[in-house]
Amino acid sequence: MKKMDSAYSQIMAIKQFDIEARKMVCVMNQVDAIELGIFPLDRVELKVVGGKKSSVTVVDVTKTMVRPNELGVFKDLTKELSLKKGSQVQVTPVPKPASLKYIKKKLDGHELTDKEMRQIVEDINKNALSEIEASAFIAGVYIHGYTLDECVAMTRALAENGKMLKISKRPVVDKHCIGGTNGRTTMIVVPIVASAGCYIPKTSSRSITSAAGTADVMEVLANVSIPMDRIKKITEKIGGVIIWGGALDLAPVDDEIIKIEHPFSLDPPGQIIASVMAKKASVGSKFLVIDMPVGPDVKIHSLDKAEEMARKFIEVGKNLGIKTEVLLTDGTQPSGRAFGPLLEAKYVMQILEGEFFDNLAQKSCELAAVLLELGGKAKEGKGYAMAKEILESGQALKKMKEIIKAQGGKCFKSSEMIDPQMGKEVLSKESGRIDSINVKKCNQIARVAGAPGDKMAGLYLFVKEGDIIKKKQPLFKIYSNNKRKLKLATNKANRERVVKTEQTVIEKLP
Amino acid sequence: MKKMDSAYSQIMAIKQFDIEARKMVCVMNQVDAIELGIFPLDRVELKVVGGKKSSVTVVDVTKTMVRPNELGVFKDLTKELSLKKGSQVQVTPVPKPASLKYIKKKLDGHELTDKEMRQIVEDINKNALSEIEASAFIAGVYIHGYTLDECVAMTRALAENGKMLKISKRPVVDKHCIGGTNGRTTMIVVPIVASAGCYIPKTSSRSITSAAGTADVMEVLANVSIPMDRIKKITEKIGGVIIWGGALDLAPVDDEIIKIEHPFSLDPPGQIIASVMAKKASVGSKFLVIDMPVGPDVKIHSLDKAEEMARKFIEVGKNLGIKTEVLLTDGTQPSGRAFGPLLEAKYVMQILEGEFFDNLAQKSCELAAVLLELGGKAKEGKGYAMAKEILESGQALKKMKEIIKAQGGKCFKSSEMIDPQMGKEVLSKESGRIDSINVKKCNQIARVAGAPGDKMAGLYLFVKEGDIIKKKQPLFKIYSNNKRKLKLATNKANRERVVKTEQTVIEKLP
Repeated sequence: MKKMDSAYSQIMAIKQFDIEARKMVCVMNQVDAIELGIFPLDRVELKVVGGKKSSVTVVDVTKTMVRPNELGVFKDLTKELSLKKGSQVQVTPVPKPASLKYIKKKLDGHELTDKEMRQIVEDINKNALSEIEASAFIAGVYIHGYTLDECVAMTRALAENGKMLKISKRPVVDKHCIGGTNGRTTMIVVPIVASAGCYIPKTSSRSITSAAGTADVMEVLANVSIPMDRIKKITEKIGGVIIWGGALDLAPVDDEIIKIEHPFSLDPPGQIIASVMAKKASVGSKFLVIDMPVGPDVKIHSLDKAEEMARKFIEVGKNLGIKTEVLLTDGTQPSGRAFGPLLEAKYVMQILEGEFFDNLAQKSCELAAVLLELGGKAKEGKGYAMAKEILESGQALKKMKEIIKAQGGKCFKSSEMIDPQMGKEVLSKESGRIDSINVKKCNQIARVAGAPGDKMAGLYLFVKEGDIIKKKQPLFKIYSNNKRKLKLATNKANRERVVKTEQTVIEKLP
Repeated sequence: MKKMDSAYSQIMAIKQFDIEARKMVCVMNQVDAIELGIFPLDRVELKVVGGKKSSVTVVDVTKTMVRPNELGVFKDLTKELSLKKGSQVQVTPVPKPASLKYIKKKLDGHELTDKEMRQIVEDINKNALSEIEASAFIAGVYIHGYTLDECVAMTRALAENGKMLKISKRPVVDKHCIGGTNGRTTMIVVPIVASAGCYIPKTSSRSITSAAGTADVMEVLANVSIPMDRIKKITEKIGGVIIWGGALDLAPVDDEIIKIEHPFSLDPPGQIIASVMAKKASVGSKFLVIDMPVGPDVKIHSLDKAEEMARKFIEVGKNLGIKTEVLLTDGTQPSGRAFGPLLEAKYVMQILEGEFFDNLAQKSCELAAVLLELGGKAKEGKGYAMAKEILESGQALKKMKEIIKAQGGKCFKSSEMIDPQMGKEVLSKESGRIDSINVKKCNQIARVAGAPGDKMAGLYLFVKEGDIIKKKQPLFKIYSNNKRKLKLATNKANRERVVKTEQTVIEKLP
């Protein structure tokens, strides 16, 4: 580590705080900070006196928390440096990390090189950037966007700063949905393409704002926290897994960035692309289909925006050696009828069991079709028929049961999943033809009911767009294990217009 | 406080951490976070069970630091809520503060209203914004800048979110220097204008990157941490004070913002203007002169930039009722010869004692002249002569001694200030006519020697621009109380070209 020009250093006693900082930080008295010429958020190197270990941390300056000549350290640093009671460290100011210069460059609107982007990601990974610094970077990216090269560089850096999965079989395929809808196409696509001889080590996420993420839903059926070597083994043996990506160390910096984006829901498009593609690169996918719902209540609101983003996905994929196709899908109505982990799990199993074939099943076959064709398992234009055949013949169900079993399966049959006596119905206040069903509100109600923490909590629709309904007809049922939450959710449902009927009169004046 | 739509709340036991967080934060187990539907950086209201106190904090989510049903709180919150061992709190999710929406609006490049700007400043003041959030705001301001109205709104909000000084006498005048040079004009201007019947409650800062700030220098002579009521009394009685603004609670949000700007040295011009003008507004100044040095090594590098910024200062001043004039000054050479608290204090006293009249004295009279004319003490065009007369007649020295005494003075005579035997000379390596003296390097050397923490540490120039020097002639002397630091500083001085002589030969080829 390069020291500051003519740096003066100081030996200091350790004061241990019995708490984790979860970032590289130490606490210094103002007197010592002045002595060392240090300001809050500057960096120092800490070298254990009489030991070999050293580390660079950000400095927090205080008048009260530590005395002069005392350096406050948290549990994480105590562990990293193997500090003991009475340990001393030599404290030396070091220059700011190079990535700060690159972040400033981004704020100034200049393009970053591959090397600069990599340095920023590495420094986030090492906890070498403070939250203030990382946040300024994300704000810069939000305002100025990424060039294609920057996006590719970010993607590679995210993937490389984490573990990589190496599947020895071919073809390795993958799918992704740019959030905002319900319905677990993954749990239908994976068994279909795995049945056809593709390999799909599918990592999924837990819900952020919706009633359930695929990992939450799959968890109803099986274990979703599975170590890397098991994922490799299962995928190579039976063709697929459906697991929670968060339990792995794939592109961990992405999680840090998502945390920083959360307060403002910043989501710069370039960062979304890098985030998605990094996770695909880190599991070794070579063929990818992306489901991009378009609608007023999902992430992407207009076809123009969707097409622009789709083209970027394809371009970045090309640069990474991942052949990518994007399906723009209808994000204006629910996919299937279920919201919430258990309800969605049951719904998917019903489709696999052949109980019905609805819009969720159809979308799943469309997505599987792309992968079958990209992966060389179906001829061009023949993928959809093949996918549907695999689903309807029961092969997909058989494969799904294999996957559930391989993942320490808990539950295999839809009929065993939920007590039909449970839940509370919400009735229509008017009669008419259903014009729209608000997916966002369905998700919100399911969350108020306790989803996804309470697996059983959620909402199940009895109606769909175009249905003719009567006043007091049941529209949907809300489930929850918690009475208070069930009441809160029902109240919310009765207060808001979740299901809209066609209205010819818009307003009535006196 | 508005609760989240249909918010579900939970009673939790307190786990106290024996450390300050210095922000409004609590630590929650992931299990409870999922139960409450909360993500890291979301907010909750904490209401003491069986008590009346409540507070809103940001949530940090952990798997290890606290157990489920336990809420981790830090010393500051424990104090605010008067929590005891065994206390319980009711935890309820609340919506994000409104200012997050406004910050997003700024990131999106839209102008913020007065109300929106005020809300952001209030939320920073209440510690209601996380560092991630405040940093995104500053990045947005850096990239998009402020409109005049935004800058005025920010200035007002900064001033109003802090204490205000109310001097009952008139005229209240002020001066400010946009950093980057040495030399303490303040300590010459204040006694001059106070002698002439102006009132100048001058707040100054400590050094950030230079060898000394005015507060560091004045501290050699007197106490600079003085409470508001004393400042008012002294100013009203003898016309002026020279104190450290950091000890007061004037525009405290500004200090938070400066901390956030520090890692990238962000300094958006609009924020600099708001920062300066807020401090002037909070002490009730009505007439203001700004010294704006221009040069390659100071904050403002070109005349164009300086003029643009000067016009903004004048405009913002007009909106705030502060009549402002700006002097663009020569920032290419040192003001006087001293760098470091004690050396600069001595130097200023020598000028006041009439020992010499150099470029620092001249600049001080020019600045004082503006205030004398603005404040109605001198006719237009007559201010400079009046200022010089007050300085040369000894009136300014007399007034300075009154000020030092009123501030609990320690030292009154330049001759008593430093032992001429101390210090280490640095000699010239070449002969020639001095072309330039690098102010930035002088400051850096003084800091390596220990300034401003070590009051005696610093650098004193024996030469000035235009002097003819011989090889081995002493260029300057370095002072320090610490032998190791003196050696580091001397080595640095010998390694770098602090003083440049004119060179006719640029390069010699074989």
